Parts: sequence; structure tokens; C-alpha cells
Amino acid sequence: MSDRIHASYWLETPDNPARAAEVIAGEQSSGTFLALANETPELKARCGARVERLELLDVVDQPSLPGRYKAGARFQRARLELSWSVENMGLSLPNVMATIAGNLFELQCVSGLRITELRLPVAFAQASPGPAFGIAGTRRLAGVAQGPLIGTIIKPSVGLNPEQTAAEVRQLLAGGIDFIKDDELQADGPHCPFDERARAVMREVNAAAERLGRKPMVAFNLTGDLDEMKRRHDLVLSLGGTCVMVSLNSVGLVGLRELRRHSQLPIHAHRNGWGYLSRHPALGWDYAPWHTLWRLAGADHLHVNGLGNKFSESDAEVAAAAQAVLKPLWADAPMAAMPVFSSGQTGLVAAATHAVAGGTDLIFAAGGGIFGHPGGVAQGVTALRQAWDAAVAGVDVQAHAARHPELKAALGFW
Amino acid sequence: MSDRIHASYWLETPDNPARAAEVIAGEQSSGTFLALANETPELKARCGARVERLELLDVVDQPSLPGRYKAGARFQRARLELSWSVENMGLSLPNVMATIAGNLFELQCVSGLRITELRLPVAFAQASPGPAFGIAGTRRLAGVAQGPLIGTIIKPSVGLNPEQTAAEVRQLLAGGIDFIKDDELQADGPHCPFDERARAVMREVNAAAERLGRKPMVAFNLTGDLDEMKRRHDLVLSLGGTCVMVSLNSVGLVGLRELRRHSQLPIHAHRNGWGYLSRHPALGWDYAPWHTLWRLAGADHLHVNGLGNKFSESDAEVAAAAQAVLKPLWADAPMAAMPVFSSGQTGLVAAATHAVAGGTDLIFAAGGGIFGHPGGVAQGVTALRQAWDAAVAGVDVQAHAARHPELKAALGFW
Repeated sequence: MSDRIHASYWLETPDNPARAAEVIAGEQSSGTFLALANETPELKARCGARVERLELLDVVDQPSLPGRYKAGARFQRARLELSWSVENMGLSLPNVMATIAGNLFELQCVSGLRITELRLPVAFAQASPGPAFGIAGTRRLAGVAQGPLIGTIIKPSVGLNPEQTAAEVRQLLAGGIDFIKDDELQADGPHCPFDERARAVMREVNAAAERLGRKPMVAFNLTGDLDEMKRRHDLVLSLGGTCVMVSLNSVGLVGLRELRRHSQLPIHAHRNGWGYLSRHPALGWDYAPWHTLWRLAGADHLHVNGLGNKFSESDAEVAAAAQAVLKPLWADAPMAAMPVFSSGQTGLVAAATHAVAGGTDLIFAAGGGIFGHPGGVAQGVTALRQAWDAAVAGVDVQAHAARHPELKAALGFW
Repeated sequence: MSDRIHASYWLETPDNPARAAEVIAGEQSSGTFLALANETPELKARCGARVERLELLDVVDQPSLPGRYKAGARFQRARLELSWSVENMGLSLPNVMATIAGNLFELQCVSGLRITELRLPVAFAQASPGPAFGIAGTRRLAGVAQGPLIGTIIKPSVGLNPEQTAAEVRQLLAGGIDFIKDDELQADGPHCPFDERARAVMREVNAAAERLGRKPMVAFNLTGDLDEMKRRHDLVLSLGGTCVMVSLNSVGLVGLRELRRHSQLPIHAHRNGWGYLSRHPALGWDYAPWHTLWRLAGADHLHVNGLGNKFSESDAEVAAAAQAVLKPLWADAPMAAMPVFSSGQTGLVAAATHAVAGGTDLIFAAGGGIFGHPGGVAQGVTALRQAWDAAVAGVDVQAHAARHPELKAALGFW
């Protein structure tokens, strides 16, 4: 294992690709666009980013991203791998981010650039906390030893008051749900204050736990300033709650890191805004490198969208994201996190999701897939479990439905 | 002034644009892709995002962003303005971000989406700190009552040890510089530890201040975890330093907000990574809405790139960014911040920069434009000042050079 930081990119350039690679490496380490007297060969050897690999792909006539290109320019695509000495920035995630994804996407020699992979030396496992609970801790707290956590999201996203929210939670708990989350738009607005909502919801959860012998997990969205997040966490904890949720792009790495430092509960990490980071294939981030930073900073659950989702991501992208979350970061320090599948999910994608995830260590969140069941919420939850039972057993969902009426009824509307 | 939150977007859609606008508004407020029984008309009126404006532009045959579109689809472009009640999320910047730029860029009805404007009710001015120093405080601390702050960046970006860094600073101070910043890649690596660097540099700055009667400002990059940033800030303050720098995308809104809460010094805000947020014109963020969130959270200096820069941004984009930073956020609460021009800057763009900024309330940072001067650093700084004197006086830079030998010598290499 290299003790250097390695990042891979998909690059498109109007220039000679080897020269473009050197410009990018220079810009992100000891170089600049001007030759410098004190950028000595010794300094460059010690601190310069190294071009580890440059694999040429196709050439195209049109640039993926607009820029100031010479007339008649053609655009070479390539896979580029760079590496940096940890000496440059230390074992600091915020500074790794500035190095691997700083001022390089806007370089003139770049007509497309996307970061596709990040590999860090195992020393980062000592320097960063990683998930405190991960898969095992989440299963323990939720009382779900095997199978996926069947989950859902409170809807309407905003607008319900605390008592209405609690009534919806009560219905879901009666239906046998494992996991419930706030919508990411619901935080601490004046007509659904966080504290009142948490109190009302936890009354229902605690009552259900008495009855069930296990406590379904509710992820309360505490996104906000640091003092607000800490205070809300403490309230959830004091009420017997077992999970908090945060919008990663809203609070940033420092926000997550500080929440992780303070938290005694699993952190459900929402990636809303992911689209502006990833939607153009020639720009921005793949999920694998992006999620690594947040996972190291302490995210226990990481959203990966869902197969057959209502958004624009393909199933291949969703699969790659889920597999990245499930992959150990290092053999000796896996830093296991749990992928969260959501967005238009039904039992029809259970088998494919099972195949993609290589198991059931995941949260499977459905909204319409539960609420739309003609027999009501309880049958909706049961039907999802039956679909997952079939997936795990390798039985066709239609065949399984013949002996399971809730599933059979669900197949009509999924 | 509306008491609602208003965000404008450039939208491209394969669907009926009015329907797409409603989908986006619904997704980001009370709706979802399924009709909900408890999304009552009353709830929708209270919490639904409102389509304030939909102005159709051109129609194109090819989508700006890939997605799953029907064969033969055409793509309508439009300007869209949405508004939300502050009741939905309260006066919370992280939650505003999740609302205006959350799960909407990846919607299937979107083949392009870029946020172009953000207007917040003035109540946010009470809830958010804004810049503690801004233009006036920066001028006071740097001892520069008028004209731009002539600045530069320590290069090589990484690789110099603390003593080498201090030697470069000494040379710049002798040359009459107003402002020096760390490169954003330089933080606290093992061969240039922050503390040693700050001590070595501040020895030079304090000595120069004795001599000059004013203290040139050095922005130390303290990007890191929160406790690291606080500790580094305290060290800089104790050494008599007058500025700290942070990479916004690395620390996030919570990181900046907490630094602002703690800091007794101006915060120089670096936007590295801006390219992945903005480089494709049909995706992501314009600088005006983006910078507003960071300015409210406490950024004193905000990078805007530079005219004729080495990156891919056009001069029009740079001008728009600078003007956004210089524009008061509200008449009663301007929250004035200072734009930082950098990247390949020379005296040749002084006049155009002066015109764009409508004055000299800015930091003008040059690297090669100073170091490349044949007469050395002092003449490089002097030449930049002369170019700015000409710009402010409305005198042609070539004519001005006839009576100013440092400027004349600079014109040859700029």
C-alpha cells in the first residue's frame, strides 16, 4: 500500500494530454503557471504531485465543457492518476479535499474533469474517526439482526405539525416499520419545531418499543449550526432516540466532524445537492471518492439513491455508489457504513438491490411503495419484507406472491 | 421586500415547463411524486413553494445534461423563480441551502438547472453574523486607507519550509506589499507546520510594521478541523497577525460559522473547488447566490478570480461575481465584503478591474505580475500601484508609464 494519496480522474483536454497532466499535477502541488526560481528539483521531488498513470481514451471534436479553446481544437480523453505525499497537507480531510478537488476543474487545459477514485494511506484511519456505529451498531440499536431495515420518510416533506407527524409515525410503527426518517426539508421551522416534533415522535416510538421489544429507529434531521445540532442531539438522546440525520452539503466536513465528536448516536448522512456535484458526467465527483471523505469524518448511513429511481441516475451509478459504501476502506480498518436506498423504491427492485449490495446490510426506504398499498401501511411494510424474503431466498417475486397475499396485493400497484 | 425566500434558476426541461416548474416546487416543499392524502390545500398554501415567475427562452434539440428522455424530446429553456415561506425552514443558512439547492438538480424533468439568484428576507441579517470586518475593518487593520490592497500569494504553493516562507515574506514586505496569503494547498503539513510558519512569518511582519508604521496583512491558511482552526487563529492573534484564511468547500457552512463565532480577525474565504460547482453553464451555481450564504456566515474577503485569468471563466463571469460581492445584501444591512481578484493578474487589467468594481475596495493579488518584474519584487509592487493610480485617474496605462519607469519596465513582461 502506497503511503501517498492517490486520486484518479477522467480527463478531457484540448492540449497534449501528458502536458495537461503535468499542469494539473503542478497546479495542485508546487507549481504555478510561471516558472519559479525556488521550485528546485529537490522541492519538486519532495512535494510535486506525481503523474502515476495516463491512459488515453478516445478523441472527440466537441468539448464537454465550454472554455476558451483554439479553433479546430480536438479533445483527448484519458484516465489520469495523480499522487501526493502526505507531507504536503498532513492527515487532514479538509486539506485533502482542497488538494484533490481544488482549483483544477476550471483550468484552461481541462475541457472535462471528474474525480473517480480516492485512495488514502491507512494512517488516515487513525487520524479520522469513521462511523461510530456502522452496520453492526445500527442493527443492534434498531433490533434488526438480519434482513434490510425497511424504512420510510415522513411526507409531506414539510407542513405537518408535531402532532400530525407523530400520528404518521404511530401508523408506521403499528405497521411494523424498522426505520423512519425526517425529510431533509424538515428541520426546525416555526410550525414544526424540532423539540416539539422529537418529543411527540419519541412518545410514540417509546410506546411501540415497550410493545415490540425492539425500538424502531427514527432519524431526526438536526441540520443547523453546530450549537443547534449538539442541543438537538442531546434532546434526542435524552428522549431515548437512536439516530440523528444531517445534510452533508449544508454543514460541510467540519460540521459532520464536530457532530461525530459530540454524538452518541448513529449519524444518518443525507447527500441532498448531490446532483450539482455529479449530474454532468464530465465534471465533478463520482460517489466513491466523495463519500470516502464523509465516511471518514463519521457518517454511519450514506444515501445512494435507488435502483429504478425517480431521479436521473442510472442503475449502474446507483450500484457503484452502494458498492463503494459497502467496500471496506482498508482491510485492517473497514470503517463499515450502511447504504441507504431510496426514491421510488418498491419490492420489485428488492432482488436486484440484493444482488447489487451482495446482501442485506442496507436501509431500504420506500414512501409510495408502502403508503400506496391498498390494504394500508401495515400490509405495505409486510409486502416489502416478503419481497425481500423472496430476494434473499432467490425465489421469483411473482411466485412468492402466490403464497403471500400482502405481496400479491402490492404487485398490482408497485 | 417579500418576507419569503426567493431563488431564481435557469431551467431546461424535456417536459411542459409549467409542469416541470410545479414538480420542482413540489419536490422542494410539501409535494412528492405521489399524491398524498394529507397534503391538504391548506397545507400546500402554507408550505408549498410558489412559482413566482416562468419566462420561456429558447427550445433546443439536445439536452444540456444526460438523462432518460423520450425519443424525439425537445428541451425548453426558461427562467424560473420560486419562493418559500421562511416558516418551512426558519432563518437557518444550512437549511436554506438544502431547500434551494437540494434534491432538484437530478430530477428527471430537468435537463439543465442552475441557480442564478437568491434573495432572503432581511430577518436573515439579524440571524446571521455576516462579515465582522468587511472593507472598512480590512483597510483599518492593513493600514491602507485608499486604493486597492496590492497582494500576492506565497509560491511555490507547497514545499517551502517556515524559514524559506519567512524569507519570501521579508522580500515582499521590503517591496512594499499590502497583503500576502498562503496558497490554499499550504496548511499544516509536516515540513511546513502551521505554528512554525506563523511564528517565522510574523517575526518579519512585526519588524516591517515597526519600520513602516502600518502592518501589512497576511492571511494564514488555517483550514482544518474546528479545534485546529481555533487554536491556529489564537496563535495568529497572539503573534499580532491580522487575518486568517479558510477553504470554504473544505470546511462547509458550519466550519465557517464556527470560525466566525470564534475569530477576532478578518476571514479570507477561498473558494477552491468552485469549478466543480460552476463550470458547466447548465448545472450548479452562479456565484451571486452561492457567495451570499458564505458572506452571511461570516466571510470578509471572497475570491472572484480575475479579469483575463488563467482559468476558464470569462471576464463577464468574473465581473458578475465581483459585483455580487460588492453589492449590499440589504439597504439597512449591507454586510459589506471585499472581493479578491487573482490569477494571472497584472497592471494591464487594473483599469478594467477598476471599472468592474466601481472603485478600489478590493484586494488585487498578483504572483508573476510582481515576481516577474525585471527590477525585482519592489519594482513589481510599485509598478502595480502605478497601474492602479493610472486606472483611478482615468489615465492610459501606456501614457502613465512614460513618467514612471517601474511601470514602463513592467509593461514589457506583463
